[in-house]
Amino acid sequence: MSYKVAVAGCTGYAGGEVLRLLLQHPEVEIGALTGNSSVGDRLGAHQPHLAPLAERVVVETSAENLAGHDVVFLALPHGKSAAVAERLGDDVLVVDAGADFRLADAADWEKFYGSPHAGTWPYGLPELPGQRERLAGARRIAVPGCYPTAVTLALLPAVAAGLVDPSGVVVVAASGTSGAGKSLKPNLLASEAAGNTSAYGVGGVHRHTPEMVQNLSLVTDQPVNVSFTPMLVPMPRGILATCSAPAAEGVTTAQARAAYALAYADEPFVDLLPEGTWPQTAAVVGSNRVTVQVTVDEVAGRLVAISAEDNLTKGTAGGAVQSMNLALGLPETLGLSTIGVAP
Amino acid sequence: MSYKVAVAGCTGYAGGEVLRLLLQHPEVEIGALTGNSSVGDRLGAHQPHLAPLAERVVVETSAENLAGHDVVFLALPHGKSAAVAERLGDDVLVVDAGADFRLADAADWEKFYGSPHAGTWPYGLPELPGQRERLAGARRIAVPGCYPTAVTLALLPAVAAGLVDPSGVVVVAASGTSGAGKSLKPNLLASEAAGNTSAYGVGGVHRHTPEMVQNLSLVTDQPVNVSFTPMLVPMPRGILATCSAPAAEGVTTAQARAAYALAYADEPFVDLLPEGTWPQTAAVVGSNRVTVQVTVDEVAGRLVAISAEDNLTKGTAGGAVQSMNLALGLPETLGLSTIGVAP
Amino acid sequence: MSYKVAVAGCTGYAGGEVLRLLLQHPEVEIGALTGNSSVGDRLGAHQPHLAPLAERVVVETSAENLAGHDVVFLALPHGKSAAVAERLGDDVLVVDAGADFRLADAADWEKFYGSPHAGTWPYGLPELPGQRERLAGARRIAVPGCYPTAVTLALLPAVAAGLVDPSGVVVVAASGTSGAGKSLKPNLLASEAAGNTSAYGVGGVHRHTPEMVQNLSLVTDQPVNVSFTPMLVPMPRGILATCSAPAAEGVTTAQARAAYALAYADEPFVDLLPEGTWPQTAAVVGSNRVTVQVTVDEVAGRLVAISAEDNLTKGTAGGAVQSMNLALGLPETLGLSTIGVAP
Amino acid sequence: MSYKVAVAGCTGYAGGEVLRLLLQHPEVEIGALTGNSSVGDRLGAHQPHLAPLAERVVVETSAENLAGHDVVFLALPHGKSAAVAERLGDDVLVVDAGADFRLADAADWEKFYGSPHAGTWPYGLPELPGQRERLAGARRIAVPGCYPTAVTLALLPAVAAGLVDPSGVVVVAASGTSGAGKSLKPNLLASEAAGNTSAYGVGGVHRHTPEMVQNLSLVTDQPVNVSFTPMLVPMPRGILATCSAPAAEGVTTAQARAAYALAYADEPFVDLLPEGTWPQTAAVVGSNRVTVQVTVDEVAGRLVAISAEDNLTKGTAGGAVQSMNLALGLPETLGLSTIGVAP
Repeated sequence: MSYKVAVAGCTGYAGGEVLRLLLQHPEVEIGALTGNSSVGDRLGAHQPHLAPLAERVVVETSAENLAGHDVVFLALPHGKSAAVAERLGDDVLVVDAGADFRLADAADWEKFYGSPHAGTWPYGLPELPGQRERLAGARRIAVPGCYPTAVTLALLPAVAAGLVDPSGVVVVAASGTSGAGKSLKPNLLASEAAGNTSAYGVGGVHRHTPEMVQNLSLVTDQPVNVSFTPMLVPMPRGILATCSAPAAEGVTTAQARAAYALAYADEPFVDLLPEGTWPQTAAVVGSNRVTVQVTVDEVAGRLVAISAEDNLTKGTAGGAVQSMNLALGLPETLGLSTIGVAP
Repeated sequence: MSYKVAVAGCTGYAGGEVLRLLLQHPEVEIGALTGNSSVGDRLGAHQPHLAPLAERVVVETSAENLAGHDVVFLALPHGKSAAVAERLGDDVLVVDAGADFRLADAADWEKFYGSPHAGTWPYGLPELPGQRERLAGARRIAVPGCYPTAVTLALLPAVAAGLVDPSGVVVVAASGTSGAGKSLKPNLLASEAAGNTSAYGVGGVHRHTPEMVQNLSLVTDQPVNVSFTPMLVPMPRGILATCSAPAAEGVTTAQARAAYALAYADEPFVDLLPEGTWPQTAAVVGSNRVTVQVTVDEVAGRLVAISAEDNLTKGTAGGAVQSMNLALGLPETLGLSTIGVAP
Repeated sequence: MSYKVAVAGCTGYAGGEVLRLLLQHPEVEIGALTGNSSVGDRLGAHQPHLAPLAERVVVETSAENLAGHDVVFLALPHGKSAAVAERLGDDVLVVDAGADFRLADAADWEKFYGSPHAGTWPYGLPELPGQRERLAGARRIAVPGCYPTAVTLALLPAVAAGLVDPSGVVVVAASGTSGAGKSLKPNLLASEAAGNTSAYGVGGVHRHTPEMVQNLSLVTDQPVNVSFTPMLVPMPRGILATCSAPAAEGVTTAQARAAYALAYADEPFVDLLPEGTWPQTAAVVGSNRVTVQVTVDEVAGRLVAISAEDNLTKGTAGGAVQSMNLALGLPETLGLSTIGVAP
Repeated sequence: MSYKVAVAGCTGYAGGEVLRLLLQHPEVEIGALTGNSSVGDRLGAHQPHLAPLAERVVVETSAENLAGHDVVFLALPHGKSAAVAERLGDDVLVVDAGADFRLADAADWEKFYGSPHAGTWPYGLPELPGQRERLAGARRIAVPGCYPTAVTLALLPAVAAGLVDPSGVVVVAASGTSGAGKSLKPNLLASEAAGNTSAYGVGGVHRHTPEMVQNLSLVTDQPVNVSFTPMLVPMPRGILATCSAPAAEGVTTAQARAAYALAYADEPFVDLLPEGTWPQTAAVVGSNRVTVQVTVDEVAGRLVAISAEDNLTKGTAGGAVQSMNLALGLPETLGLSTIGVAP
């Protein structure tokens, strides 16, 4: 059985990564590749690494071109997914890599995205409690943001087990430049970004902040507050999220490690590293794996948890394919790898 | 009037940067260049960028070779400075880029460095209150660590003005690889470090932690706690320090910016950036300038302050030369620049 | 049917890449992982990206540990392969990623490697004429050098078709740092190599030079001379080889492209790019694909051909697996991909 | 005596580097800073590393704004210089960092630039024979291209001394991304350029080719032909030019080195490296120094010469300031440095 899959927004980084993974997926046939300003181009002109698709031609993102597929991936600018999705049948699996359907709180949506709230779709983070059940058979999936995936997986066991005070979460996360997309902005030029680490979206204004709060709130009754600071580092792929919160009275590193080991014992894509080993992004580049480590700083009184992911794979396209597998009733890991490309 | 200056440990990154700055200093004559395994080599073999010194020969780090200088810079492995310094006359200005004489608390020293405490020298961070007076005429100077310089300058005004609760400081700082020195470790190989961001020294174990606490404690009576996480990012130079602490009741971004503007109004090497502009390391590479920005995240209840510095310049050698200038009675900014080399 | 495969030298870059590919090969079971100074370590400590092998323990490179395998990959320092290979049975397929058995000319070997000539094994570059036949059923294979693979594939059609004078070949090739291995040399430190392009092995002294001459001489009766200059560029993986030679009288770009199109029409891993598109290394990272482009500069009178490869994949481990497939009678492309990991 | 200097095109990389150098020049006062789309912006928004000029405001590139200056630097897109220059008085020193007045041959200009030939100005490469005399007192200067500077300095002594056949020159040069300017092109995005080496302008079509031929032809009566291939490497600054040509009968490395040593004995900014040491770009970043090495490959029959420069400094703005100094009768090295910023 093979599913016919279209990708809307095939020339960007998210779309390219979806295609890279689909090309290695045994139950998928790649159908329409749609774009906007690139209509008529060979895909090879935009995604030169996808050799098997080099001669495919980009077509317009229209209901006609997206019709006749079992699955449609949307890798569109924020705010553009709803209009496309509503013209696709209810029996079509629509997997949205954009933000449009992630947030349940309309006020949060409007505050951070500035447009009317489109609604909420099942959230494509299978590692959340009960989420695999919600994704099974789903026909609409909202893929998490790249930072929220890393942060949620870093902190979920600690919050769920009551090891920390979730009202005092501090996250500082470094992202490779592909997280900013293929947009032509001066600060994303190689000459500017090489040899440069820069902060942006500081002070609670980054759009991924409410998504982190929403996720962590699923496993605690206490109020969750996240001080989130992203930074851009000079590498194409990868997120390293350093997360901390006040440790509950008496919590030790050993207890924290035990809670994480238990939480992730059966997770195919989340690995608690051996004690003393800390995550590094290079080890997960190209893979759907997230590595995690945790410790308790007894002097500062904080539990510190760090995760590394590939922002384009587990942080976007890999998480999307993992959720697609669950929605289609396929083995969750099909077509996905825990093997990174290093050095 | 020209001062004759020797550099002990001339082949490493700190020593090289000291020499780069001294070559551009109008009141300095470069004397002995000493090393260890490199004795007999041309300096050009180790510091190919220092063209004017290419044919100088590295000599042994001995009392004989260091004699007859007005100033001696020590850029030695930690723990090696005391033995060298005690053989230099009290009238010689000794500027130690190592950690040996930074910490006042012997217990902290022994906990973090594992060797007997050598003592404390005047601390080469002129921006601390009253520190210029202490450095004037000093003949022994302990240069701050690269991270503590960045973190102290990011947080000092907020702590001094009581804008934050200093017991809840969280620092996550990204450093370029030169911060780790020219040591031959596998994780510092280009193939490993390129495209890689990695955490290390997590959970309160990094040696610069007590130095941050010591500095911030100078301007507050309240207890100071710092949760410090360093990370290595793929660039040769630069530190971006993201620092936060619980904001005091009712503190606004405008108040915070006003406090920082006041604190740094007359500082030649610390710039509060225009509102909305956040520090980036590339803008300060090669310069002695630190850029700072601050905001208050009212939802998360934290003040966030970020600084960028060149870890080798203001973070090490530039801070050393700035302190040397003060000790010698020269203009503080002599031979130092606020102009970065970018892109 | 599954082949049991051992890898000797599993902690280096070549060994790691062999393992990365074998993990994705459907007919292979990974057996002994041997090393030297790393004996007793978890493989995860050396190859953190190979998650499925993280808990495997490195054992000594001994005849005992290598016994009982169908295939043994040798990723050892040059000069070490013969001693290991001679203790392995004639029925075992030994694939040597080192240089020891590449050169047919003993004088060349001794001139460039300075040790006695060990002999010659079938050469693992299936794209050479008649080479697939020689590799079928072979039980000893010498994997080509990374530069010779790129250069040979760039120039072979031009030399074979008589489009150039092979006595005037000039090659300048840029390599990522992994080509230099995981050796702890100062010039390979991230701080040194970042932001740096440097030449080395200039003037005909690089060991890969005679191998290029040997390969190109297979398709011409004329004397072949190669002026080869390698350079190190700041990226972990990839080789871009710029090759040129005096064009034969009247040869046009169209003729050259036609010759290349014909030569590579059926090659699964070599792609002539569309006219006007030039190779870039990022598009082939992690893949076994080589991209090639050719033009004739009529003013300068030279044919210019450029190729891009991943030095660790097609340039080493991918070429090795491709040759293994041929030797074992498996489909040549099994377990290998033409899809790169980008950006 | 201080000269008032304007910079037209102050927000780009060439203009920024001119300003970085002028800020460190003791005989210069910085006047108007002009731009186009950036008019009204703080300079700090575009050149955040130029702290002393951060609050300067960009004004329009008009005759009015450029009036009243002793020196005007033009860092404009190609083809835009003539219209600006003709409105500046003959007594104003105009230094054009663009290509408009470099080529003497109108047919070459039209072939490579596609617009009418504007004429020729004194060429700002003082290392050419007799060029210092031509620059003394000049009021119009055409700054060389970045590649031609590197290539000319690498090959000039060999061609002048008849050590090579100049009809067979092959140049392959790697450039950092700033050489492509601050233009918003997809291939210059950090995500694309990081970890990537790519060829462009292959086959004799790069605009700097005729400029190389023009320069080398100054010192030989023989025909000069240059096969030139540029490539983009992932670093912000630096050019490494690998140049070769058929060696004249019997020429040895020792003879070549002697010729280069003689040619560059008195040059303040060109250094022949010690035998066995090859140029690397990192050692000259931020400096006006060019390093050169030469050898003869007797097997391949070619002399190989390699040079490294900072494309923005000696390759553009440094060469411009050096020529300005000569034109104004100032010491040639004033405000320029041979000290690089490394690592």
